[in-house]
Formats: sequence, structure tokens, C-alpha cells
Amino acid sequence: MVTTSKSKIQFVKKGHVTSAKGFSAGGLHCGIRKSKLDFGWLHSDVPATAAGVYTMNSFQAAPLKVTKDSIAIDQKLQAIVVNSGVANSCTGAQGMSDALETQQLAAQKLSVKPHHVAVASTGLIGVHLPMEKISSAIRSMDLKENQSTDRFEQAILTTDTCTKHFAVEVEIDGKTITIGGAAKGSGMIHPNMATMLAYLTTDAEVDPDSLQRALNHITNKTFNMITVDGDCSTNDTVLLLANGLQQNQPLSEDHPQWALFVEALRYVSEELAKQIAKDGEGATKLIEVIVKGAPSDIAANQVGKAVISSNLVKSAVYGADPNWGRVVCAIGYSEQPVNPDRVCVSLGEIPVVTDGLPVEFDEEEGKNYLLQEQVQIIIDLQDGEAEAKAWGCDLTYEYVKINASYRT
Amino acid sequence: MVTTSKSKIQFVKKGHVTSAKGFSAGGLHCGIRKSKLDFGWLHSDVPATAAGVYTMNSFQAAPLKVTKDSIAIDQKLQAIVVNSGVANSCTGAQGMSDALETQQLAAQKLSVKPHHVAVASTGLIGVHLPMEKISSAIRSMDLKENQSTDRFEQAILTTDTCTKHFAVEVEIDGKTITIGGAAKGSGMIHPNMATMLAYLTTDAEVDPDSLQRALNHITNKTFNMITVDGDCSTNDTVLLLANGLQQNQPLSEDHPQWALFVEALRYVSEELAKQIAKDGEGATKLIEVIVKGAPSDIAANQVGKAVISSNLVKSAVYGADPNWGRVVCAIGYSEQPVNPDRVCVSLGEIPVVTDGLPVEFDEEEGKNYLLQEQVQIIIDLQDGEAEAKAWGCDLTYEYVKINASYRT
Repeated sequence: MVTTSKSKIQFVKKGHVTSAKGFSAGGLHCGIRKSKLDFGWLHSDVPATAAGVYTMNSFQAAPLKVTKDSIAIDQKLQAIVVNSGVANSCTGAQGMSDALETQQLAAQKLSVKPHHVAVASTGLIGVHLPMEKISSAIRSMDLKENQSTDRFEQAILTTDTCTKHFAVEVEIDGKTITIGGAAKGSGMIHPNMATMLAYLTTDAEVDPDSLQRALNHITNKTFNMITVDGDCSTNDTVLLLANGLQQNQPLSEDHPQWALFVEALRYVSEELAKQIAKDGEGATKLIEVIVKGAPSDIAANQVGKAVISSNLVKSAVYGADPNWGRVVCAIGYSEQPVNPDRVCVSLGEIPVVTDGLPVEFDEEEGKNYLLQEQVQIIIDLQDGEAEAKAWGCDLTYEYVKINASYRT
Repeated sequence: MVTTSKSKIQFVKKGHVTSAKGFSAGGLHCGIRKSKLDFGWLHSDVPATAAGVYTMNSFQAAPLKVTKDSIAIDQKLQAIVVNSGVANSCTGAQGMSDALETQQLAAQKLSVKPHHVAVASTGLIGVHLPMEKISSAIRSMDLKENQSTDRFEQAILTTDTCTKHFAVEVEIDGKTITIGGAAKGSGMIHPNMATMLAYLTTDAEVDPDSLQRALNHITNKTFNMITVDGDCSTNDTVLLLANGLQQNQPLSEDHPQWALFVEALRYVSEELAKQIAKDGEGATKLIEVIVKGAPSDIAANQVGKAVISSNLVKSAVYGADPNWGRVVCAIGYSEQPVNPDRVCVSLGEIPVVTDGLPVEFDEEEGKNYLLQEQVQIIIDLQDGEAEAKAWGCDLTYEYVKINASYRT
């Protein structure tokens, strides 16, 4: 463990979605995909308090509806089963029935209540789940024999080039609480493999309503602030499970250390979000946009999103072109009330715009800064106290190549 | 002249921004750009009633402010002077003073009132106008000697690969009214050459307030419905001049043939908008998205824009991949109330989604359709009467190449 600047939160070396007490996971290949792992499960020794955030896309896939309805029953989950390769989206009544059957079968096999099983799918839109393969996968799940967190984290991927995982520990009321997570990003070689999935786990005991509000808040500041190409999928899901196995005094918004717990949760989410952005399709760089001095949280978020989503900014970063005009332009069309005469922009520590006017800078220095693997675009609107961060990646030939390739 | 389906509106072969009576134009090279024409002027024999629509970007360039203020004085313009190469945007007080000086000098040279001269610039953001070159260009303007509409239409271009122009004639009250136009698109090899400029002219006499409302309405249905990369510039401007030289009964919203006039104006605007979309950076194809059955105009517009702006849809069209899932996905995140179970999508005449569910189709046929130079994506929301069209282009390697190239 290494101490971070937030001195009370320590990140766990090689932290995973099962770093917290009582969580286990596994993954296998059931044949939906050619050879990659395509079925994974995450399990808690006891039912965990659960919170979820789902895509805003009007076309919500069947497994999202089943999961949402299940959590609504008693705000608890004990297992999550995920397949990759087929999204079970735009699949009508058959899709709902397949998602429910998956849930039933997994509940039987794991000896947990059906509504304590979340189901998730990521992959092709408009294709039905191959239920024979799914049920054979469920029969093969074995919580004792074939546990492997790494295989779970692999099984949820689509075109991601690496697994995404992170964990932290935080001392609350004298107990060491662990928060871990795993995620997949939005890679889409095959059509519509668009999904972002993130699973967060903790061994803290937490009040369910406080947990849901914390997840909403954190998602808006982290997972909702990343973009690969601005396309938001039908299956995006973030789930958070708190199983209470540390037997701490229940945490809620009234607890004196609530802010610390939320900060730890945000830290895990932000790291996973950055890992997703960095592994965007065809990406060679992680771009971090930092917005300061905004009149409101919404303004800060929107300005950050406009800049991180700009194809022109993304192309310029790819080409290491210190092209501040494109940043200013994107700030201007963010549909937020911006005072052009106060805007300041810097690329890392190089100021390029001050009070709305260009600053002379060494273009070579700017270019060299942008040649790095991680670059920051810092915007100060000088019009308030609100801040936001947004993450994305550069737009490359490889992105176009991946997404223009025909599906055969 | 060829009769269109709107039988009363006829398009003019080789129609231009000077097809209407009393308009003339010219262009020259004054040295802002290496060798391409970079200064143009458009002139009306008499002061014309004028309407304007400007970028929503918070960073409005100096020439826009000067033009807007000038039109506000008596809703008239007699000339437009445009330079390319430098946008006079993010240039502070000096930029305002340069724009005003340009207006003054042009007014003297053309013997018109200063506030009857619109000024426009397109090119690099954050660079001051080279006023010596501009004033020498103004001295060289000659309404008799060096008239050339083609040179005007060239002078306003930046990285466009061709000029954009169109004109129609329409019979109103027994008089033949001509409406012409020229435009430039959003090509951005150099940073921030982002501007869309469109100039519309007519020899009809039109009530100024009706003219402005018509332009607002039409711009929302045409120029605001095109996208190359979603980046909206600091200099986008549409101006409409009606000089009344046909001596028709003044047109206004009360006139029985007002709808016909507006339709003719919309026709010219739509053709120019399509020419801009088709000539987007690196584009190989024009994509037309047609939205039907929407509950409101706003919903129709937003769904159309979400689909035409999707990098995934644009890449799929480039790769001729009949990837309807990406279209459905974009409809879903348009933030409009869409009923997923009613949505129908076709690629040209090939239905791919009906009532929210995939339809079996011949993938080869779909691919062949998308190999064409112009493709239509038709969406029926089956939830109302509103319609919209949106235009864009495919996302290609060339786009990334153009925009990643360093500015030297």
C-alpha cells in the first residue's frame, strides 16, 4: 500500500473488484465469442446493499430492466452474471424472457434469491442470447473450483485491450474498509459493442438510500465525464455492492466520516473512468480536461464535456498541435453562459489564453507537451467556484479503421 | 431551367449569389493567404433589406458584432466584404477596431453608408487582421472592372474543395423573383478554419421583420441541420439581402404567396447546406437523415442531429457497414422522448428496424446501398407529425489526417 495525498485513503496494490472482504469472482468461455472469455460472475458471501445507475439511452436493454426491477425489491444483490458478445438489446419480449431465465438459472446454481442476481450483457445489438450456451455456462460456475477475479475482469471485456481494476482502503471508526472495482470500456470493433460496465464493491455496511445517492453523485463526476466518441450505449451500467462484512457502524449521510467514504468511492470510480478513457478505441493518449472557476456544477460539467468531446480537439491532441483556438471554440459552444473576456486556458503548465486573449508561447514547447501520453487541458472560467474534470482520448486513424470495418 | 417537383419553383442552371437582379460580386488575392483568393465583395445596386443569423458560440468574432449592430440600425445592407485566412476572433479591442476600419474603408470606396456594409472574416482564431493588406484590397475593389461572381465564391473559401452556389426562380404576383446564394463550409486544415458562411440574395421586396423571421425559421431547418464534426465556430453567419429591384408588391407574412416565397428560400438554403455537408473535411459521401413521425419539431431536429453527428454512424457509412444498431443507439441518446417499441429505420428503401425490432435484410444489399455517394437514413418515430432532415458526411482517415496535421 502507498499513501496518497488524501492521506487517509490508501490504494491497494493490484487491487481488484474482489479486494473487499467476502467477494469472489470467476470467468469462462461459453462459446458466444470465438475464443475470448465471454461469461463472468461476481458473488458476495452475504446479500449486499446495492445501488445502480443505468444508461439514459431510451433503448434500455432487457438485462438492465431486469436488474433495475430486482434491486427495487429490497435494495440488495448477492451476485452479478455478465456475458459479452451479445447485448440482448432491441430484442423485445424474447430478450426479457432470456434475461429473466438467466437470472433464475444463476440464482438456482448459486443458491441465492433470484432478485438478488443482477444480469448484464454487452455486445451486438439486435441479437438474441444463445440460451444453451448461457445455461451451460451457468452450470459450469463453481464458487469453489474456478474462482478467478482476473478471468471475471477479462470476461466482461469486448474490444478493450486490457482489464480495468482498482481498489483502495480507508480507515473508518477504527475499521479498515476496502472499496474495489472493475470496469470495461467502449470499444466497438463489432457493431454496437458500445457498453460501459462498472462494478464497485465494498465490505462496509451502508444505508441503502445514502449509498444510491452517493453513487448518483459520483457517477456524474466520474463515469459520466468520460467520452470515447460521445456515443452512449443501450447497456451502460454501474452497480455498487456493500456487503457489510467489516461489521462497521452503518454508514450514512449522518455519519461524521461519510465524506471520507464518498471520497474513497470517488477515487476508485475516477481511476476506473480514466482507465476506460485511456483504452478508448484507437487511442494513443489520455486527455484530462480540468474546468475551474465555473458558475455552477452543471456549467463546469458541460464545458468539460464539450471540450473533451470535440473531434477537432481530439485530432489536434493526436497530432500534438497546441491548437488552443479549438479549445476556446468548444468552450464557446458548450451552451453555458461563459464570459469570453475572462476565459483562461493552459496546456499543462503552459498558459495559451489569458482573459480571452492569446498568450505568446513557444509552439515547440506546446508540441512537446502534447507528445506525452497523458495531457491536461486546464480551463479557468474565472466566474465562480465550481469545478469538474473530464477524460477522453485522442481521435486517431485507428479509431476510424476500427469503426469502419465491415462486420464479417 | 428545369422544373422541380415543387412545380412553381424552378432552379436556375449555373445559379449564383448574383443571379438576382442588381447584385454583383468580385474577389482578389491580397496576400493573407499564400496564393488562393482571400478577399471578396458582394454589392447591391440599391440598399437591400437585410436579415442575419449568427453563431451561438459565446466567442463571437469582432466582424459578427459589427455586422449585427449595423443591420440593427435600419435593417439594410448594400455590400458585404469578406476575407479568408484570418478570422479576427479572440482579438479583443484591436479586433473590433480593425473590423470597424474595414467597414469604413469599404463604405468610402463603394460610396455606400458604413452601416450598410457587412464585414466577415474566416480563418485563424487569435490572429489580428493584416490591415495593410485589407486596405490595399479595398482600394483594388472595382465594381465595373473586376467583377466576377466566381472569384467572390472562391475568395470566401478556406479548405473547401469547391465553391457552393445555387439559385431558383419563382413567379409571385406575375413577377419572376430570383433567389440566389453562395456559401462556404467548415474545412479546417489550419486550426479553427471552422466557419460556415452563407449569403442569400433576392430581388424581391420584402418586409424586414418577415424576412428576419423567415431566415430564422429556414436556418433552423437547413444550415443548422448540417454537421461535419459537431464543432460550431466563432464566425458562422448567414445573411439574406432583399433589394426589391423586381418592384413586386412587398412580400410579408400577410401576402397570399408568402409560403411559396419561403419555400423557394428554403430550397436554396437546403441545396447550399447539402453542398457544404458533402464537401466536409475528408468526406467521401453525403449522408441525409430523414426523421418522420416525431412528436415535435424540436424532437425531429434533435433526433436527426444525434444520428448525423454520431462518429459511429459516420464511420459505419464510410465503411459501408449497414450497422443499424448505431442508428438506434443515437436515436436513443438524443434526449428526446422516444418510444423504443415504435421506431422504424430504413437505409434508403431497405427496412432494417420495424417497431423497435430488427428486420432480416440482405447484408450485401445494405452494403451496396451504402457504397453510393449519397445515402439516406430514414427514421420513423411513429409518434406524431413533425419531420426534419439533417445532412452530414462520413468520418474518414482523411478527416483525422487533415485535423491532426501540425500547423506549419
